[in-house]
Amino acid sequence: MTDVVTPGVGVPAPGGVSRSELPGGLRVLTEAVPGVRSVSLGIWIGVGSRDETPTQAGAAHYLEHLLFKGTTTRTASSIAEDFDAVGGDLNAFTAKEHTCYYAQVLDTDLPLAVRVLADVVTDALLTPADVELERGVVLEEIAMRDDDPEDLLGELFDEVIFGEHPLGRPVIGSEESIRGMRRDVLHDFWRGEYTTPRMVVAAAGNLVHAEVVELVGSALAAASARAGSASPSTPRRGEGFVLAPAPGLVLRPDDTEQAHLMLGVPGVSRHDPRRTALSVLNTALGGGPSSRLFQEVRERRGLAYSVYSQHIGYADAGVLSVYAGCAPDRLDEVTKVVRSVLAEVAADGLTPAEIARAQGNLRGGLVLGLEDTPSRMNRLGRSELDHGRQRTIAESLDRISAVTAEEVDEVARELLSAPLTVAVVGPYDDEEDLPGTVRDP
Amino acid sequence: MTDVVTPGVGVPAPGGVSRSELPGGLRVLTEAVPGVRSVSLGIWIGVGSRDETPTQAGAAHYLEHLLFKGTTTRTASSIAEDFDAVGGDLNAFTAKEHTCYYAQVLDTDLPLAVRVLADVVTDALLTPADVELERGVVLEEIAMRDDDPEDLLGELFDEVIFGEHPLGRPVIGSEESIRGMRRDVLHDFWRGEYTTPRMVVAAAGNLVHAEVVELVGSALAAASARAGSASPSTPRRGEGFVLAPAPGLVLRPDDTEQAHLMLGVPGVSRHDPRRTALSVLNTALGGGPSSRLFQEVRERRGLAYSVYSQHIGYADAGVLSVYAGCAPDRLDEVTKVVRSVLAEVAADGLTPAEIARAQGNLRGGLVLGLEDTPSRMNRLGRSELDHGRQRTIAESLDRISAVTAEEVDEVARELLSAPLTVAVVGPYDDEEDLPGTVRDP
Repeated sequence: MTDVVTPGVGVPAPGGVSRSELPGGLRVLTEAVPGVRSVSLGIWIGVGSRDETPTQAGAAHYLEHLLFKGTTTRTASSIAEDFDAVGGDLNAFTAKEHTCYYAQVLDTDLPLAVRVLADVVTDALLTPADVELERGVVLEEIAMRDDDPEDLLGELFDEVIFGEHPLGRPVIGSEESIRGMRRDVLHDFWRGEYTTPRMVVAAAGNLVHAEVVELVGSALAAASARAGSASPSTPRRGEGFVLAPAPGLVLRPDDTEQAHLMLGVPGVSRHDPRRTALSVLNTALGGGPSSRLFQEVRERRGLAYSVYSQHIGYADAGVLSVYAGCAPDRLDEVTKVVRSVLAEVAADGLTPAEIARAQGNLRGGLVLGLEDTPSRMNRLGRSELDHGRQRTIAESLDRISAVTAEEVDEVARELLSAPLTVAVVGPYDDEEDLPGTVRDP
Repeated sequence: MTDVVTPGVGVPAPGGVSRSELPGGLRVLTEAVPGVRSVSLGIWIGVGSRDETPTQAGAAHYLEHLLFKGTTTRTASSIAEDFDAVGGDLNAFTAKEHTCYYAQVLDTDLPLAVRVLADVVTDALLTPADVELERGVVLEEIAMRDDDPEDLLGELFDEVIFGEHPLGRPVIGSEESIRGMRRDVLHDFWRGEYTTPRMVVAAAGNLVHAEVVELVGSALAAASARAGSASPSTPRRGEGFVLAPAPGLVLRPDDTEQAHLMLGVPGVSRHDPRRTALSVLNTALGGGPSSRLFQEVRERRGLAYSVYSQHIGYADAGVLSVYAGCAPDRLDEVTKVVRSVLAEVAADGLTPAEIARAQGNLRGGLVLGLEDTPSRMNRLGRSELDHGRQRTIAESLDRISAVTAEEVDEVARELLSAPLTVAVVGPYDDEEDLPGTVRDP
C-alpha cells in the first residue's frame, strides 16, 4: 500500500465534473460543489446480487457487511470510532447491479474517508469469527425485512416477474443461502469481483480533483497493481435477455392490518431509447399527488394512504409496477380502479396537460434533487458505471423536454396492454380467498 | 385576502437569519443560503396532538390531511397539479407539539408556494364530503402504522411511560377516535388553534427577506386581521408537569419474525440545562456505530441488525429510550446486554474518549446536517416556536464543546438508575411468555 500511482490528468467534463482513469482501470470522478463544507465520497463496484450464482445468493450483500469488520490495519471498532469522532456518515448499500461504500464528511476529513473506504473495500480480513458473527446480523436483517410487508411484497413480485432469472432473487439472499454461506465463497466473490476495472470512485463537494486523484491513487495502489493493465471490464449483462410478461399471482398470507398489493408489467432497460418517455408515463401514472392513480385511488375514493407507481430500469430489462395498501375488504375495489386506470392509459394515452405536468415534475425534481452532495456523488458513480459517461444537467433536462405525446402514448400502449403480474401480502388463507379482480390475469 | 399588511422591518439575526414580526403576531424567519437554486418554505403552527382533548384525539393530524382537500379558490387536484407541474415538493407533518406545512421549490416558484401554503392553512373548505373521504385515508394510515412493528412499538411505549398524559397518545389518534370525529370538532380545532400568534413562517434558500415578508404578509393578511393585535401566545405547556419513571411492561402479541424491544426512562425537557449533556450521553450510548449499544449488541454478539438509543425532549418532559430488533429466542440475551450497558453507564459514567467522540459526532453531524434547505428551514421554524429565538451554528457548536465529563456522568447517574419502562411487540402469547429479564422492572 505504499506505492504511489501517478495520478491521471483530470479531464474536465461538461458541468464541472472531472474524470481521471488511473493505472489498473480505476476511474475517479469528482464534482466541485460551491458553497458547501462537506464532501461525499463513494467507492462504487459494478457488481450486485444479479452477478451471483444460486449458491452465492446474498453474497454481495453479506460481503458488504463483512468488509467493515476489520482490515489488516484497522479493527471494526476503530473504523466506527474514526467516523463517529468527526460526525461523519459511513455506510454502504448493495443493489441488484451495484455495490457502493460511501461516506459524507467535512472537507477536512476527506483524506480519512478515502483511506478508510479504500482499506475496507480492498484490505479487509474476513476472519472466520466475523463471518459467523455477521451471519446473525444478516439473518436479523432478513427477519426485519419480513416484518415490513411492503418490502416483502416487492421481493415476492420480483420473484414472480423475473422467474428463474438472477434479477428475481432478493439482494439480501434467503435464510437458507445465508445459513449455508461459507467464508471461501465470500472471499472468492470479493477477490473475483472487486477489481479496479469495475470500480469507480465518485466524490462531490468542497474538493479539488487533483487532490482526490492523488489520495485515491495512493490508497488503492495495491488493488490497482493487482489488476495490472486491465482495461475497464466489458459489460457482463444485457446479452440477449428479454423479460417477457409473466401473468401470474402470488400471495403471501400474513396477519397484517392492510392488504398490500403490487401489480406490474415488464418495462424497459436503462439503455432503451424509450426510457425517458417511460419516466414521463410513470410520473403521470403514479409519481405524485396529481397523478392518475393518486387521484383515483386516494383523492376521489379515500381507499388508500399510500399508492404509487415506479419504474426500475436494469441493464437489460425493466419493471413498471403499482403499489397500494388498503383495507382487506376493499382490495377488490382498489384492484378494479388500478386495472381500469392502466387499461384507460393503454387505450387512450395521457392528456397533453398530464404530459406537460409530468415533464415539469421530472425537470424540477431533477434540479431540486441535486442540491446535496450525496445526490451529486450518486449521480456521478451510477452514471459512470451504467453508461460510461456523464450527462450534464442541461442534457438531462433537454431529454425530458424532448419527449413527445406520441412517444408516451406508444410506450403506454405497448407496456400497459401486457397481462399483469400480481403479488399480495395480506390476511388471506389462500389464493381462492382473494377477490376475482385480483385473480384474473 | 387583498389587504396588504405593511411588512415589518427585517432584523438581521446572527448567522444570516432575518426575523420580522407582522401585525397579528405572525413571525417570519428567513435564511439566505448561497449557491442553491431552491427555497424551502414552511408554515409552522405551535400545535400538535398534545393540545387535543381526549375527544379530539387525532384531530391535529386529521385536520392536516383535510386542509389540502381544497380552499375557497383551489381544488385539491389544482393544488396537487400546481406543485407537480414545477417538480415541487408539497407536504405536511403533525407531531406532538408542532404542525408544519412545507414546500420545496425552485426559487422562481416561491410566490406560488407562499400563496398555496397560506391558502391551505387559513382558507380551506373542510367540506363534509371531504371529511368522510379523508377519514378512510387516515384509517388506512393507522392500519399501515399497525403493520410496522417498530412504529407500533414506539406508540405503545409512549402510552406506558406517559400514562394518561396527552403526550402518551398517538399523534394519529385511534381507530375509534377517527371513526367518531365530527366535522365541527375539526373545524373548531382549526379556528381555535391556527391563529397567527402561534404561526411561524420559515424559509431558507435563494431568497430575499423583504420579498418573503411581502409575499407572506399579503397571503396571510386575512388571518392576521382575524388575530387583531394579539401578541404571540404564551406557552401553554410546561406548567408543573413532572414525568415520573413508570416501571412497567407492555406486550403487543404479534406474529412477527423479530421481537421488537424498547426500554426507557424519563429524560429532560428541551429547556433543561442538562439537555446538551444528555445529547452527548445519548450519542455515546446508542447514537452511532461506535456507541456502546451498537458495539455490545451488534458488533460483539451479532444479536441485532438495528439497535440504537434516542432522546426526545418536549416542552416539559423528555424520554430516553433504547430500541433493538432481534430473534425472539434471543430477546433474553439482548435485554440482559442492554440492561447491563445502562447499569454500567449509570454506575461508572463514560470514558473521556467516548465523551470526546460523542461531542465530535454531534458537532460534525450538526454542520453536515444543515447543507440542504429543508434542514435549514426546519431549524428556523422549530427554534422560533420552541425557544422564541435563533441560535447560531457557532453557539450550538460551542454548547456541545462546553459539556464536561462530570455533567454527562451526572445526568447518566440520575436518569439511568430509574426503573425501566419496557415495551415489546413480538410472537408471545402473554407477558408470562416473555423471558424474566424482560419482565423484571
